[in-house]
Amino acid sequence: METHLQQQLESLKSALLSMAALVEEQIARSITAHVERDIALCELVIGGDQPIDAMELEIDDQCIRLLALQHPIARDLRFVASSMKITIDLERMGDIAVNIAKKTKQLAGMPQLKPLIDLPRMADLSQSMVKDSLNAFVRGDEQLAMDVCARDEEVNQLQDQIYQELLTCMTEDSGSVPQAMQLIFISRHIERLADHATNIAEGVVYFSEGRVIKHHAADDPNQPPTRPESGGPA
Amino acid sequence: METHLQQQLESLKSALLSMAALVEEQIARSITAHVERDIALCELVIGGDQPIDAMELEIDDQCIRLLALQHPIARDLRFVASSMKITIDLERMGDIAVNIAKKTKQLAGMPQLKPLIDLPRMADLSQSMVKDSLNAFVRGDEQLAMDVCARDEEVNQLQDQIYQELLTCMTEDSGSVPQAMQLIFISRHIERLADHATNIAEGVVYFSEGRVIKHHAADDPNQPPTRPESGGPA
Repeated sequence: METHLQQQLESLKSALLSMAALVEEQIARSITAHVERDIALCELVIGGDQPIDAMELEIDDQCIRLLALQHPIARDLRFVASSMKITIDLERMGDIAVNIAKKTKQLAGMPQLKPLIDLPRMADLSQSMVKDSLNAFVRGDEQLAMDVCARDEEVNQLQDQIYQELLTCMTEDSGSVPQAMQLIFISRHIERLADHATNIAEGVVYFSEGRVIKHHAADDPNQPPTRPESGGPA
Repeated sequence: METHLQQQLESLKSALLSMAALVEEQIARSITAHVERDIALCELVIGGDQPIDAMELEIDDQCIRLLALQHPIARDLRFVASSMKITIDLERMGDIAVNIAKKTKQLAGMPQLKPLIDLPRMADLSQSMVKDSLNAFVRGDEQLAMDVCARDEEVNQLQDQIYQELLTCMTEDSGSVPQAMQLIFISRHIERLADHATNIAEGVVYFSEGRVIKHHAADDPNQPPTRPESGGPA
């Protein structure tokens, strides 16, 4: 029985890794497509979301079967529960990649604004958080997970700077409004990738230790910052 | 054993209802605060998020204990799995109410733009979706859940209209950019409330029947539309 449970847990982990790899690829492509204004790559991203959606459903099924038939406990049970939550973040990150590709397509038909220095930096940082949160999950590396949570604040600050820069741009030149709006939306999408990476990292600490770090930053100065409220620009 | 399981399921349902009631109250307050430009009410919303965060953690614990000790199967197991997912949507809806309150505070210090006719309509519609998705969950009312999913498209269309109206406003009068931006963010937050309600409604169909309706609209013309990609304006 024990062996069968372990096999099923390994199979679940492997399915999550496949889903994560697809999501990482979609994110990387959407950001490259944005930087290089590559419409063909945008289309590839937009068409590439379906397998991710399908994997979310498959993994949920796998978790339900595992719970029904194997009755995992303690760390194994927390791993399965975390997996069901992580698929939500992965699926939504996949949607965000599609949204970045759609906004990039809209931008491509407009005159180009001056390049934003902070946007590629913010994209790199968010991508590294996504990658590291997934690595932390696979290895059960709590330290790496805490490190991911700590980086979220930097992404929020960069987004703030980008927003202020684009706001100035729009007030000084109303002709720039349509492009600036698309860039604001893209920067918000990138910031939300970092939020989802933070959610995953919080889940890693939970399944490793049964310890909850989200929502608790104010209680303990040694904890990394909690995730920001979803959505709003900082 | 059966009785104990049923008791724990009832207790889980009751905890979810308490969390949902708090979230609904926060949403209603944030929208009233926006419509009436009521700063004191904004502060109340901003300060009112902590109990919701705490309830998410408590309900997750309750689910884990229930899975570990009671080994629910079939419909009961799906109910517990759905509950863990629903808390994520509820918690994020709570965050959105806080974000609406924060944006409303920022708006209050700026000269008022002309009233947007579609924004209160969109807010009413989203609030009705939130209420109905939770009612559908409590009653296991699949028909009501499908009805919630079908209403999401109308919210997306209203958000589109609001966005176009504000875009015109900004290009015609650059002095309106800061206020218009806050209104765009608020309308996006309201649209995301509807997305979360749709997620909950999809979960209701799943736990009632073990049938998945999300991601499948393209396959079956009789299904309600799937939720839109998160984030982007339509």
